[in-house]
Amino acid sequence: MAKKMKALVFVEPNRIALEDKPVPDVGANDALIRVTTTTICGTDIHIVKGEYPVESRLTLGHEPVGVIEKLGKNVHGYREGQRVIAGAICPSGTSYASLDGFHAQDGQARAHGIKPLGGWRFGNTIDGCQAEYVVVPDAMANLAPVPDGLTDEEVLMCPDILSTGFAGAESGNVRIGDTVAVFAQGPIGLCATAGARLRGASMIIAVERVRERIEMARKVGADHVIDFSDKDPVEEIMKLTGGRGVDVSIEALGLQQTFEACLRSLRPGGTLSSLGVYSTDLKIPLDAFTAGLGDHRIVTSLCPGGKERMRRLMSTIAGARLDLKPLVTHRYSLSDIEEAYDLFANQRDGVMKVAITP
Amino acid sequence: MAKKMKALVFVEPNRIALEDKPVPDVGANDALIRVTTTTICGTDIHIVKGEYPVESRLTLGHEPVGVIEKLGKNVHGYREGQRVIAGAICPSGTSYASLDGFHAQDGQARAHGIKPLGGWRFGNTIDGCQAEYVVVPDAMANLAPVPDGLTDEEVLMCPDILSTGFAGAESGNVRIGDTVAVFAQGPIGLCATAGARLRGASMIIAVERVRERIEMARKVGADHVIDFSDKDPVEEIMKLTGGRGVDVSIEALGLQQTFEACLRSLRPGGTLSSLGVYSTDLKIPLDAFTAGLGDHRIVTSLCPGGKERMRRLMSTIAGARLDLKPLVTHRYSLSDIEEAYDLFANQRDGVMKVAITP
Amino acid sequence: MAKKMKALVFVEPNRIALEDKPVPDVGANDALIRVTTTTICGTDIHIVKGEYPVESRLTLGHEPVGVIEKLGKNVHGYREGQRVIAGAICPSGTSYASLDGFHAQDGQARAHGIKPLGGWRFGNTIDGCQAEYVVVPDAMANLAPVPDGLTDEEVLMCPDILSTGFAGAESGNVRIGDTVAVFAQGPIGLCATAGARLRGASMIIAVERVRERIEMARKVGADHVIDFSDKDPVEEIMKLTGGRGVDVSIEALGLQQTFEACLRSLRPGGTLSSLGVYSTDLKIPLDAFTAGLGDHRIVTSLCPGGKERMRRLMSTIAGARLDLKPLVTHRYSLSDIEEAYDLFANQRDGVMKVAITP
Amino acid sequence: MAKKMKALVFVEPNRIALEDKPVPDVGANDALIRVTTTTICGTDIHIVKGEYPVESRLTLGHEPVGVIEKLGKNVHGYREGQRVIAGAICPSGTSYASLDGFHAQDGQARAHGIKPLGGWRFGNTIDGCQAEYVVVPDAMANLAPVPDGLTDEEVLMCPDILSTGFAGAESGNVRIGDTVAVFAQGPIGLCATAGARLRGASMIIAVERVRERIEMARKVGADHVIDFSDKDPVEEIMKLTGGRGVDVSIEALGLQQTFEACLRSLRPGGTLSSLGVYSTDLKIPLDAFTAGLGDHRIVTSLCPGGKERMRRLMSTIAGARLDLKPLVTHRYSLSDIEEAYDLFANQRDGVMKVAITP
Repeated sequence: MAKKMKALVFVEPNRIALEDKPVPDVGANDALIRVTTTTICGTDIHIVKGEYPVESRLTLGHEPVGVIEKLGKNVHGYREGQRVIAGAICPSGTSYASLDGFHAQDGQARAHGIKPLGGWRFGNTIDGCQAEYVVVPDAMANLAPVPDGLTDEEVLMCPDILSTGFAGAESGNVRIGDTVAVFAQGPIGLCATAGARLRGASMIIAVERVRERIEMARKVGADHVIDFSDKDPVEEIMKLTGGRGVDVSIEALGLQQTFEACLRSLRPGGTLSSLGVYSTDLKIPLDAFTAGLGDHRIVTSLCPGGKERMRRLMSTIAGARLDLKPLVTHRYSLSDIEEAYDLFANQRDGVMKVAITP
Repeated sequence: MAKKMKALVFVEPNRIALEDKPVPDVGANDALIRVTTTTICGTDIHIVKGEYPVESRLTLGHEPVGVIEKLGKNVHGYREGQRVIAGAICPSGTSYASLDGFHAQDGQARAHGIKPLGGWRFGNTIDGCQAEYVVVPDAMANLAPVPDGLTDEEVLMCPDILSTGFAGAESGNVRIGDTVAVFAQGPIGLCATAGARLRGASMIIAVERVRERIEMARKVGADHVIDFSDKDPVEEIMKLTGGRGVDVSIEALGLQQTFEACLRSLRPGGTLSSLGVYSTDLKIPLDAFTAGLGDHRIVTSLCPGGKERMRRLMSTIAGARLDLKPLVTHRYSLSDIEEAYDLFANQRDGVMKVAITP
Repeated sequence: MAKKMKALVFVEPNRIALEDKPVPDVGANDALIRVTTTTICGTDIHIVKGEYPVESRLTLGHEPVGVIEKLGKNVHGYREGQRVIAGAICPSGTSYASLDGFHAQDGQARAHGIKPLGGWRFGNTIDGCQAEYVVVPDAMANLAPVPDGLTDEEVLMCPDILSTGFAGAESGNVRIGDTVAVFAQGPIGLCATAGARLRGASMIIAVERVRERIEMARKVGADHVIDFSDKDPVEEIMKLTGGRGVDVSIEALGLQQTFEACLRSLRPGGTLSSLGVYSTDLKIPLDAFTAGLGDHRIVTSLCPGGKERMRRLMSTIAGARLDLKPLVTHRYSLSDIEEAYDLFANQRDGVMKVAITP
Repeated sequence: MAKKMKALVFVEPNRIALEDKPVPDVGANDALIRVTTTTICGTDIHIVKGEYPVESRLTLGHEPVGVIEKLGKNVHGYREGQRVIAGAICPSGTSYASLDGFHAQDGQARAHGIKPLGGWRFGNTIDGCQAEYVVVPDAMANLAPVPDGLTDEEVLMCPDILSTGFAGAESGNVRIGDTVAVFAQGPIGLCATAGARLRGASMIIAVERVRERIEMARKVGADHVIDFSDKDPVEEIMKLTGGRGVDVSIEALGLQQTFEACLRSLRPGGTLSSLGVYSTDLKIPLDAFTAGLGDHRIVTSLCPGGKERMRRLMSTIAGARLDLKPLVTHRYSLSDIEEAYDLFANQRDGVMKVAITP
């Protein structure tokens, strides 16, 4: 009889449940991970609300830290008992898209090898990691050993938040000496701020309203924080830059208002780097876009995944380049995860990220 | 008494006139060019219609081929009588923007050195070249000698059409083996098609309706031309690419409809390279944008200028990499330029570009 | 009893033999290909001469065109009987190096995932394809279906020669309007010339001595060919470029003399793109290197592999962007391959490439 | 009668002198700067020793901080009395090279517009700034206002040391998460270390022997410093990286030994970013170069100049991204500059950089 485990599943819109499921088997190229720490993402909340459809009874969660329990027979170079993480995005490595560097759009099952968001599998197309165990597919491409000396919580942001936030600065091609604006300082915006700082921006302007987040923004690297409930962020950015505008603006919320403010904050030739998950059509105002003649760029990034990305991210933490532990504001055991969802979904008690330990 | 010359000036919306003006003086860093051939651009039509405001009595035109008549006293390395062109965009070379490579957004007069469209001066902020003589500002940065053996008409497209069209392929970063769609095959779209071919695209799909332009598209490098009056271009592109979508789509018309079709034609991770001059806000449909998670890029380009750009473009013509002479479908003397405007504005008689000779 | 096949094996320096070997089994992630056409590479000659060590009895050859005979049980998305090629470089797709885009330096077996030349396996670390059958490792990452309508000989250059030659132009970042010099017009140099042409170089100067290769160079895109037995190539290049030097020089021979001439041909800020396999230390003369202050770049490329690369290369042939069939100057059956080696190693009879058909 | 000023001139090899010279006139595009602080560079020492030839009686020095004394009549956007710096490299902005972004190889006087090192003019082809006054040529492209609140010494490294050092990290394309080795921690090596840190390297390994420089290396961002008099740096780097090698190695000394060690320290696919001024031919050992097949890159950078570069560098200091004040270890008045040369040339007393005040 199969061993059982606890798993948080999506039942139907606005209904989740902690259920018993069999501990899964591993295929030849997979690995089974015993989850030691995981977390809840804004995307999970979208799923719970029914805004992003997944199958009923799917286990949620895409940010696993754990220990290798079992390796598929084609998986080598790892050992059982080893501490690892896997990215929220699990590329095959072998699709046309992945071989071309578009790991997040991996579509191995398709003839042409590309699928929108295809690299995102945990808690989307396969069972996720808000459970005692999770199967990591294409394990050779996705298992990333945790460097000695790093705790679970220190690497907990790597699978999604940190990878996505940094991508905002990377895809925006932030250069030494750039001025950068980051709209919204939730967990991803904070990581974008940290990423802009790490790439050498010489002035970083964050836009946020919540007091705890404003403070955190300063800690991770913002030089100025504009409280948008108080002042118009575009006007303030223009003042701070002497009317020039910023080289790169990063959208980390997913709204028309912030997207548009990002565009209006740019210097001619600047780049809008978009991380937000939008839920409406977007409008590009003619004037903000200089009728298409401003040499502007709008670039979007889905969380980069795969073990090489995870290795690089963990190396920045091992190298003490940034400290994301303060982002973990609350801690729950897996048995109380429904309570954690409630707190996180309603953004109560200054919550940033919650650590869940099975 | 100052020598006189003929010049085509903007009087008021829907009214232009060929008038007598004094032949201008040259400042220390300028050059006076005797225009031997020029042409009319779609942008000129916008100006005439009053859709883009310029001062009354400004001489129009931004595509000069001519002969150096007089050099300012700080201009060296050229000689009077030398055949030259200058780009539609005349950067100073010395502004912050220009030194950073953003020549089209040159704002030398501003403290921070950037101005939207600031590099575009001819027929916009200073007198243009639909005249017997034109002053080229910052001549050291802008006078590009015409290689021996090339005729005026062979280089006539370099100042604007060719530079802009190629920029569509360049900013889109077309790679060897890419599939590219180019929406609209007017002069700029045709040059974008030629540019995609020159950068090694292995399949180029043009979208156009006018018979002459469809034929021309095939000549300059399109493998397939979709007549959008007959078939839905996005559907056809998906068929031609096996459902994959194109790597790069180039917008060369300036409408919501083509902008949107460009986005819908892209593979995940693809780039929309926009050349069009828009006259309305643009909408990005949520589904076409994969909610912001498709690793898409939208890049815009204003005509690159400066003498190095002109040198490179003329070298492709000297090297017989493309032949744009067929684009010149009609020829007028400057004294008949109002007639040429009428023909060009109304797109009569299969007109592509007109050559104007003072 | 295992089925037998013919295979050309390395025995010891200067000794090869066509031997009987068992048709190999396929592992779970492999595919067995029945080879229909293959060829001999200059690298094979190095191996035969003992200049590059491989194990005795290893089957040589790394350029397979064939038909899928059998698929490993984890390999999906293909069918037996399908026509395919695989690159000379077979990345795993799942190593740290491969996930970072360095497919040729794939080191899946190592803890840090990088190994010099690690992606080159056929005829190096595993049996190659100068045989009736060959096993393609990591088949999902490496099997590339041949587009309908292309013959074996039309795609025979893709696995190595074309991929390497194009990489010379790509790594050199050849731009529209560049001037490019290509030193040596053997098969790889010819493909570099074709690649420079495909990326939009407006003047291509090839350097070669052999009459047939000079002719071929002109056919694939060279504007000028300098016979170095007649004239000093650096002097000639300086004449042709008005003393400026080339933007990119491509080394396709592997000698100090050509490496140095490449460097001396560059403009300040130019790029030396090196493809040659060297067999001695190289010297960078102080003057040619402007004491390290010339903003020069020296970049090297090992043949890019993997199915996405093969797909792109075949698409350029399907799109009629270049025609490499004339490179196949001789044809042999596998049973006569030793004779083909003799012809090719001694460069007799104007041989460029030989097609071998089992 | 022309006003006189003190200027340090090169007389003949190993002989310099502080002499009286007339305060120079300004041409139409120039500016006259009253120097308030300058410094001595290793390159000046090369000149003094006769290793790099300049004309007798040329004023030395290429790192000016000062106040605008007089503006040429075509120079606008500045005011007399304004505090400015100019880069060691003064591009025209208007040459072919400069318009293409190669400011350091500016050759405005040549037909093709490129000249090796042509952007370096101060103390090389025109009088430099170790004087009471200096003429800045092409002032519109080169005068960079000092932000309020920054002292002379805070911006003194921008014209050369900082621009060059950062270029080592920039041309090497250091990415977030990279491992970087920097060979030699003189002023330029220290700035390269700081630049690697600013671009997000997660492990920086410096190589140096002098105690004060080892300490300073740690302060500006090195995680490990290898004392090469004690240990073999390549072996140590391999240990620190688990046998992988570094992503980028930066050469900041100019010797065969360090160049070679840089190459041997690289992972396959890594980049050697060279800043050193060499005085001998260089050897690339065959094994370190993997016979040309390692996907290695060797890139060189000459100090980027122009006012946009200076603006960006000063913004990193204004933003407190790094503090280079400790590099100024000694201070002299211009009247004692010969003594300062003696100290600096002989590297006595732990000297890093000297500040010279007229």
